[in-house]
Amino acid sequence: MLKGYMVPRSPLGQASIDPPPPWHYSGDVLAVEFWADPAATTSMLPEGLSPDPSTNGHAFAMFVDWQFTGSNDEYLAPARYQYREAFVLIDAQLGSRPVTCCPFIYVDNDAALARGWAQGFPKKLGSIFQTRTHAAPSPAASPVEPGARFGASVSTHGYRLADARVTLRKPVADPFTVFNRPTALVRYFPRLAKGQQDQPAVNELTVSVTDDLKLVDLWRGEGQLSFPRAPGEELHALGPMKVGAGFRYGLSYSVTDLEIVKDFST
Amino acid sequence: MLKGYMVPRSPLGQASIDPPPPWHYSGDVLAVEFWADPAATTSMLPEGLSPDPSTNGHAFAMFVDWQFTGSNDEYLAPARYQYREAFVLIDAQLGSRPVTCCPFIYVDNDAALARGWAQGFPKKLGSIFQTRTHAAPSPAASPVEPGARFGASVSTHGYRLADARVTLRKPVADPFTVFNRPTALVRYFPRLAKGQQDQPAVNELTVSVTDDLKLVDLWRGEGQLSFPRAPGEELHALGPMKVGAGFRYGLSYSVTDLEIVKDFST
Amino acid sequence: MLKGYMVPRSPLGQASIDPPPPWHYSGDVLAVEFWADPAATTSMLPEGLSPDPSTNGHAFAMFVDWQFTGSNDEYLAPARYQYREAFVLIDAQLGSRPVTCCPFIYVDNDAALARGWAQGFPKKLGSIFQTRTHAAPSPAASPVEPGARFGASVSTHGYRLADARVTLRKPVADPFTVFNRPTALVRYFPRLAKGQQDQPAVNELTVSVTDDLKLVDLWRGEGQLSFPRAPGEELHALGPMKVGAGFRYGLSYSVTDLEIVKDFST
Amino acid sequence: MLKGYMVPRSPLGQASIDPPPPWHYSGDVLAVEFWADPAATTSMLPEGLSPDPSTNGHAFAMFVDWQFTGSNDEYLAPARYQYREAFVLIDAQLGSRPVTCCPFIYVDNDAALARGWAQGFPKKLGSIFQTRTHAAPSPAASPVEPGARFGASVSTHGYRLADARVTLRKPVADPFTVFNRPTALVRYFPRLAKGQQDQPAVNELTVSVTDDLKLVDLWRGEGQLSFPRAPGEELHALGPMKVGAGFRYGLSYSVTDLEIVKDFST
Repeated sequence: MLKGYMVPRSPLGQASIDPPPPWHYSGDVLAVEFWADPAATTSMLPEGLSPDPSTNGHAFAMFVDWQFTGSNDEYLAPARYQYREAFVLIDAQLGSRPVTCCPFIYVDNDAALARGWAQGFPKKLGSIFQTRTHAAPSPAASPVEPGARFGASVSTHGYRLADARVTLRKPVADPFTVFNRPTALVRYFPRLAKGQQDQPAVNELTVSVTDDLKLVDLWRGEGQLSFPRAPGEELHALGPMKVGAGFRYGLSYSVTDLEIVKDFST
Repeated sequence: MLKGYMVPRSPLGQASIDPPPPWHYSGDVLAVEFWADPAATTSMLPEGLSPDPSTNGHAFAMFVDWQFTGSNDEYLAPARYQYREAFVLIDAQLGSRPVTCCPFIYVDNDAALARGWAQGFPKKLGSIFQTRTHAAPSPAASPVEPGARFGASVSTHGYRLADARVTLRKPVADPFTVFNRPTALVRYFPRLAKGQQDQPAVNELTVSVTDDLKLVDLWRGEGQLSFPRAPGEELHALGPMKVGAGFRYGLSYSVTDLEIVKDFST
Repeated sequence: MLKGYMVPRSPLGQASIDPPPPWHYSGDVLAVEFWADPAATTSMLPEGLSPDPSTNGHAFAMFVDWQFTGSNDEYLAPARYQYREAFVLIDAQLGSRPVTCCPFIYVDNDAALARGWAQGFPKKLGSIFQTRTHAAPSPAASPVEPGARFGASVSTHGYRLADARVTLRKPVADPFTVFNRPTALVRYFPRLAKGQQDQPAVNELTVSVTDDLKLVDLWRGEGQLSFPRAPGEELHALGPMKVGAGFRYGLSYSVTDLEIVKDFST
Repeated sequence: MLKGYMVPRSPLGQASIDPPPPWHYSGDVLAVEFWADPAATTSMLPEGLSPDPSTNGHAFAMFVDWQFTGSNDEYLAPARYQYREAFVLIDAQLGSRPVTCCPFIYVDNDAALARGWAQGFPKKLGSIFQTRTHAAPSPAASPVEPGARFGASVSTHGYRLADARVTLRKPVADPFTVFNRPTALVRYFPRLAKGQQDQPAVNELTVSVTDDLKLVDLWRGEGQLSFPRAPGEELHALGPMKVGAGFRYGLSYSVTDLEIVKDFST
């Protein structure tokens, strides 16, 4: 009897690329607000989502240094589970409900890639870095304070996909005034049998459920952002046309569930 | 309208982690035959497969340096598509049909991981290396000749999972006398919605279909093999109890289809 | 006229693997105190150092998540300069002066490797991870508090070299009661011309100079540590025979100078 | 008594990042001939070399999949010693002697980086790939034949530095009609003591000595080459202004010695 929430399923269930939920996350986020061509963001919406008439084109580039744990002290095995991530979130509507949509996301860890696929995040591998803040004072410490600067980048297969800079100005009292939309995602898994390769086995529009969502120590300032053109990628189609504020904050939540909105598989 | 055989699906369909089939492969293989505890191999068979009564416990450890291409010159973008792989194949039966089963497989490339999942290969990321043979004569060239030695290894997240050595003795006239079983696989994709996490969305027993399968330049000799114990892995449960011959050969095939044997999803 | 503190030297001096000093560092440290066989630590001392008669065998395993900057905002280019490091420090004497000696050190970044060589740190590449502490509350956050646990590891070329655990108990008022010895190092660069390969071009006993050295937020608790045996490495010769306390703290300093104790080159 | 040709020197001498010479190499090379602005190539010559009046500006971009061994079967430990490399060679003169000069070189392995530094190759880490040729026939095999195409690339820290393509046309009877210059290099190792940081400890003009040099199976065809601009690098200053032929061949040699031309250290 094979066990395991994911592949590889094995006699003891210890080889699975991921443990079953609950999945707990805590991380440091650098975010840059930007505006893309509304035609570009519209073109990236999956079936079931529509452009948000009031904000279409508005988006965030996000860079996160994540720590993950399940129920078995996975946070004590950082070589296997700690990871870094970069993604974009574009404004959209699910019916009349404001949501974000994630067209592109990159991680540097296979367990994170697999969990993402189960949620509907279209993850590929990349190399992601952000300036950290350290406690010991030094020109290298980058403390969180007015004027502090942070850099972030993501690359994949040797192509730089995004470069970002954030200069902090001041704390934001209520982070949820800035980051307040759930993320709509598409769980997608293809068929390979001949004649069915365009009929995915899984094609579900979902909305992520984030238990115990916490945003802490949110600072706002200026942002800089560029998406260099890269073969085999389409992130650069999002511009940006205009860059807005930059942010840094702490983010945590747990995943135990997923809202299935609609099943498009056939 | 989003396009792409896999995620991320995008307006132009160029961001997908993989192109649609046909998928063409050509590579160099180091293989070591071994015998595991028959109880161990039996315990690793998925529902629908049974131990091969005549060979249960017999297995191969395989290390492959692969080149991949689809229909768009992917072989000219090796930074994105060239990869290395290590896996084990254990003898089994599908009804009365002799097959192999792949309980564990590691690759160093995300596109290969994704294609593997679509086929039913339970891939995780690893770091895989094998001694190569080069044309220019040198103590470093490792030419294919009697007495030539080759090493191979796979590690994941900083744990060594397997070490292998092969010493070549002589060519084998008909490679299919050695490697002659198709591989049965399980396509598996979980659900995340609460209450359904033990009811996978996809759980199909399949048999891989390898068009234009070619094995060339097969040499046989002695093999050495060890599977060091590693946390978060179960490969070491396969022993080995006894190590047999070692092999080196060239392998190519194309994937355009998959045989679906049984759908276990609910 | 080629410019650059290190290779590659180039017309603009922008390609050098490292900028010239000052080099500024700030990082998070996990440390585990241990005792090795005194014969083993003695055997690892370079010419010019002697065992510390009162503490010989005493050592620390150190894991550091570092941020680096020179004078040109290198901390804003973390893809190039941020890095992780693991090393051991063994007690020794330079004449009557208590020092530590660093026989083995691993980093995951080439700029850090090159700076290390210039200082006398015998760096090789490795893969290093430590549990981080994040601000947003979660089972994944690992806050610095009594009972908090942290894991760390280092691997190289797919071999695990060290695994460590620290459980925090309480703050230490004065960090310099624990970490109070400068590090003696050997700058070493070989010759390659035939007949001179055992006469290094550079062979200098040095002591590192750490400007503005700060240790902050030092916590002490229990430590666990193991050094698995790995081919091509000798770290495992250090045992450990006994494991002592575990520590976590913030560390920063700048490098602008090096004390040259003795030139052994010929 | 510490042993080892390089750091880390250790009691048994097994931890050194490299074994002592002889160093044996065999590899597959993709090369693209190009012409840079002669002012650019001139600006990259170290003291002691002068532009070649008849060919100044002429250069090669080289991509090599290398296998290395010393005297202890290092080729059987490919996880530690096998590597990939990319570099440029520009024509120059050492007095009246035609040589090449290597201003930039990238490798994906630390042992190769260290050997390079000892020789005078100014190596940094990068990610290098080339299309391989495999024996088993397939659209993925890329056999060596008229019209066969090969791709190659090098990236560092997530920046693409070079993209190359070669289309083979026909064999070249005598490879030494194309590749016939030894490489002049600068062994360079800085000082860190204050006041001496611009006075390198080692600054020697050298010429590489390649025992048993073999070039086999050289094919010539068309080349394509680009050097995208990347921060922290100066390779893009080499253009190219014009791209010439493309080549593929096997290369082997051994290193046991180095010719020291002049010592510029003070």
